[in-house]
Amino acid sequence: MSEEFDVIVIGAGPAGENVIARAARGGLTAAIVEESLVGGECSYFACIPSKALLRPVELAGEAARAPGLSPGPIDAAAVLARRDEVVSHLDDTRAAGALKTVPATLYRGRGRIAGPKQVEVALTDGGTALIRARHAVVLATGSTPIVPPIPGLAEAEPWTSHEVTAVRTVPRRFAVLGGGAVACEMAQALHGLGATETTMILRGGSPLRRMEPFAGRLVADAFTASGIGMRTNTQVTKVERPVRNGEVTIHLTDGPPVVADELLVATGRVAATADLGVEAAGLVPGEPVEVDDSMRATGVEGGWLYAVSDVSGRNLLTHMGKYQARLCGDVLVARAKGQPEDLPGMRDTATRYGAPQVVFTDPQIGTVGLTEEEARSAGYHVRAVEYDLGAVSGAYLREPGYQGRAKAVVDEARQVLLGVTFAGPGVAELVHSATIAVTAEVPLERLWHAVPSFPTVSEVWLRLLETYGL
Amino acid sequence: MSEEFDVIVIGAGPAGENVIARAARGGLTAAIVEESLVGGECSYFACIPSKALLRPVELAGEAARAPGLSPGPIDAAAVLARRDEVVSHLDDTRAAGALKTVPATLYRGRGRIAGPKQVEVALTDGGTALIRARHAVVLATGSTPIVPPIPGLAEAEPWTSHEVTAVRTVPRRFAVLGGGAVACEMAQALHGLGATETTMILRGGSPLRRMEPFAGRLVADAFTASGIGMRTNTQVTKVERPVRNGEVTIHLTDGPPVVADELLVATGRVAATADLGVEAAGLVPGEPVEVDDSMRATGVEGGWLYAVSDVSGRNLLTHMGKYQARLCGDVLVARAKGQPEDLPGMRDTATRYGAPQVVFTDPQIGTVGLTEEEARSAGYHVRAVEYDLGAVSGAYLREPGYQGRAKAVVDEARQVLLGVTFAGPGVAELVHSATIAVTAEVPLERLWHAVPSFPTVSEVWLRLLETYGL
Repeated sequence: MSEEFDVIVIGAGPAGENVIARAARGGLTAAIVEESLVGGECSYFACIPSKALLRPVELAGEAARAPGLSPGPIDAAAVLARRDEVVSHLDDTRAAGALKTVPATLYRGRGRIAGPKQVEVALTDGGTALIRARHAVVLATGSTPIVPPIPGLAEAEPWTSHEVTAVRTVPRRFAVLGGGAVACEMAQALHGLGATETTMILRGGSPLRRMEPFAGRLVADAFTASGIGMRTNTQVTKVERPVRNGEVTIHLTDGPPVVADELLVATGRVAATADLGVEAAGLVPGEPVEVDDSMRATGVEGGWLYAVSDVSGRNLLTHMGKYQARLCGDVLVARAKGQPEDLPGMRDTATRYGAPQVVFTDPQIGTVGLTEEEARSAGYHVRAVEYDLGAVSGAYLREPGYQGRAKAVVDEARQVLLGVTFAGPGVAELVHSATIAVTAEVPLERLWHAVPSFPTVSEVWLRLLETYGL
Repeated sequence: MSEEFDVIVIGAGPAGENVIARAARGGLTAAIVEESLVGGECSYFACIPSKALLRPVELAGEAARAPGLSPGPIDAAAVLARRDEVVSHLDDTRAAGALKTVPATLYRGRGRIAGPKQVEVALTDGGTALIRARHAVVLATGSTPIVPPIPGLAEAEPWTSHEVTAVRTVPRRFAVLGGGAVACEMAQALHGLGATETTMILRGGSPLRRMEPFAGRLVADAFTASGIGMRTNTQVTKVERPVRNGEVTIHLTDGPPVVADELLVATGRVAATADLGVEAAGLVPGEPVEVDDSMRATGVEGGWLYAVSDVSGRNLLTHMGKYQARLCGDVLVARAKGQPEDLPGMRDTATRYGAPQVVFTDPQIGTVGLTEEEARSAGYHVRAVEYDLGAVSGAYLREPGYQGRAKAVVDEARQVLLGVTFAGPGVAELVHSATIAVTAEVPLERLWHAVPSFPTVSEVWLRLLETYGL
C-alpha cells in the first residue's frame, strides 16, 4: 500500500513542524515521519529542559549579588520537577495531536529515502509503509552528538546533551568535556544544582572560542569565581570507567586526571544523515546535505529533495532551523502551485549576516553577525568599538559590581554593523536589537536616533555609538 | 565683573551635562549653572535611586515565582544603603569634578536670564555673578512636581518623587495619588520594602492610562495579587493631616477615606521656568519653552536661547532629554563655527516617532512609538496585532505561569511599525529592538529575517509577525 502527499518531511522537531505548518497553510497535503518524540530534541533534550535547569541557577546568582536579598539553597528536586513539566514528562501526545490540526499525517517510525520522492517508514508498531511525495521530500532529522575517538571514552558511556538535560540525580563530581554553549550551560546548571565539584576540560585557553575573546573570558572568570574548575589548554588521552555508571577517570595531557561521578561530552554534533537513505538521492550518508538558499538540496536530479535545520549543516541553532523551515515551506507551496518562488521571504538571507545566538549562562552571552576577526577575514574594512557594560547606569543598577562588555563591529564602507556581542548578566534580550540592526543594515546615523530607554542596560547602544565617534 | 563663554547652560542635570560635553568637544567654551546638586534630579532623586529601590523587589518577586528558590524577606536597610550608594550619598563632588575635565566652568547658584545672552547667578556662597554668552544660553532646569489644588493637600506636605526616592523610614501605611510610571514604581518598591498597607488612588479605572490598555491592566492585576490596594475611578476631595508628619487621611469621592502614614503625590510635572527670568526673552514664566527641532526657542529675537529636556515640554524622560542635549550641543558648535547645521544628527527626529519608555515595575512595561489609538487618531491606516507573551517559550521558561502581552501597531500603507508595547516580567531590554525597528522604519518584510534567538522572550517578534500574516 502506498499513500501520496504533496510533501513528506522526515523528522518532527521544531523545523519539521514549521515546514508542514507553512506547507499546509498554503494548501498542500503533508506527511511527517518521526521515530522518536514529536517535538524533537529541542523540546525534550536540549533548549527547553536546559533553560528550565539554568533559570533558577541564574536567578539565585543574581539574588546572591543583590543587596538585601538572601536566597537560600536551591531545591534541586523542585527544579528537576519543573524540568519534567516543561518537557511534558516526555509525553508527546499533545504535540502529536497538534499535527492533526495542521493538518498533517504522522507516521511513527524510522524514515528512509527509498528513491526519488519516495520514503519508506519502518513503523514503530511494526511493518513498513511506503509513502510518495508529489512535490518534495524534506529532511529535518537534526544532528547527533559527536563522541571523539579517545581511548575508553565511548566505553565509558558518557552523557551527551541528551542525557544531561534529562538528569535525574545530580552527580556530586561532574566533568565536562568541551567549551561551547552546551558545555558551559550544563556545567553551570549542574554546579548550581549540587554538582559542587564540577570541572570543565578545554582544549583551548577559554570557553566559547568562536566568539569575541572577552565573552569566553567573562564566562571563565565567573565560573572560576563560583568554584567551577577549569582545566585549560589540555586534551584527554584516555578515559577509564571500570564499573558501569561508576567513577570515571579522565586522563589529560598534563596535570592530574579528573575523577568524576559523571562525564558530559559536548564537543560538537554531526548532521543526522547516516541512516537516511540519502545515497538513493546520490548523496553521501553521514555528511550534511548541501542546500541552496531555498533549502533545496544541490545536485539532486529533479530537485525534489530539501533539507532544513542541523541536517543542512548551515548551523545548529533551533531558531535558524525554524527560520529555514518557514521559508522552505513557503517555497514548496510556491513551486507546487507554479507561483513566483523567488520572493525575499523565500530565501535564507539571515545566515549570510551571521546567526544570532544566546548562551544562557550567568553571565549571558549574546551575539549576532560576524566577530571582528571574522569580518576582517572576510575582507571588510572594519572598525570595532567596545564598551564596559558595568559603566552603563542600567547595568550598575541591575547589580553592584556588574561585570560585562559589549562590542560592535562596523563596516566602515557602508557605516552599518556587521556584528555585535553582549556579555554580562541578563543580556539575552538585548540581542534582538542587534539582530534587527545587523539584518536590516540600519546605518549608524539612523541608529543614533534610536534612543535607548534610561536606565536600561540597552543604553550601551548609545555608549558604543559615542565611542565610535557619533 | 563679567565673564564670557561661548555657551551658558542653566541646570547641571544629565541634559545640561550633555549639552556642554558636546559643545566642548566641538571646541566651544562653556559655563554651567546649578543651584542644587550637579547630576540633577535624575541622579539623586528620580531614575537612579528609584531603580535601586525597585531592583531587589523585582528580583524577590521573580525568585518567589521560580521553582526551587525560597527567597527570604527583603532586608530593607540593605536596600536603602545601596540606594544611598548609587546616589553617592547626595555628594556631587565627583560629578562637579568631572565638569572640569569637559572642560566647563561651574557656577554654583541660582541662574536667571538677565537679558539677551546674559545670565545672572545668585551664588550659593553669596554675591552675584553676571555671565555673558557669545552664542547661546541653554535652559536645562527640568521640571517640578505638580501638587494638585486639593483642600488640605499642600498643607499635608505630601511626598513627591523627590522625597520618596530619598526615603529613610519606610511607612507601614503608604498612599499613592496618581497612576503614572512614578506612582506605580514607587508603590511597588515601598510595598516590597515594608509598606505592607499600600494603596493607590486613581482617577481612572487602571494605571498607565496613556499606554495600550493591557499594560495598565497587567500592572493592576499584579499589584492587586500582591496585596496593593487599588482605589479606582475616584478623586480626592480633601486631605487632613493635623499633626506634621503624622497620620494623613485622604477623603475620596466614594468609599471610606484612605488613612496612611505617608502620602506620595505623583500626578504630573511642570516645566521649571517659573523663576528663570524667561520674561527677559519675551517668554511666559511657568510655561514650557517651545523649541524647534534644533532645540532653539521659537520667537526669541536673535535666536540665542535654547531649551532641552523637561523644560521644553516635549517629554519628561531622561533619555530623551539627553538626546535633545546631544543634538543641541552639536547644533551650537555648528552655528558658532558657521558650519552646516542641518545635518540629520542635529535635529530631533526621535520625538516624532514617539519616545521609548520603560516602567520598571514587575511586570515591566516597555513602549515605543504610537499606541493603536494614537496612530488611528493621527490618521494612519492601521492594523494592530497582539500576542500572549506567556505562550512564548522563552517567557514560559523564564517563569511558570508567565503573564504578559505584546502588541505591534502597523502602518498598512508603508508596512512599517508605528508602535510596539511589551508588558511582562523582564521585558525592559526588549524595548530597544522595537525602538530600532520603529525609528529606522524597518519594513516588516525585512524584520521577518531578523530571527529571534531561541528560547528568548524576544521570540514574540516572530509570533507578532506570524500573527500579522507573514
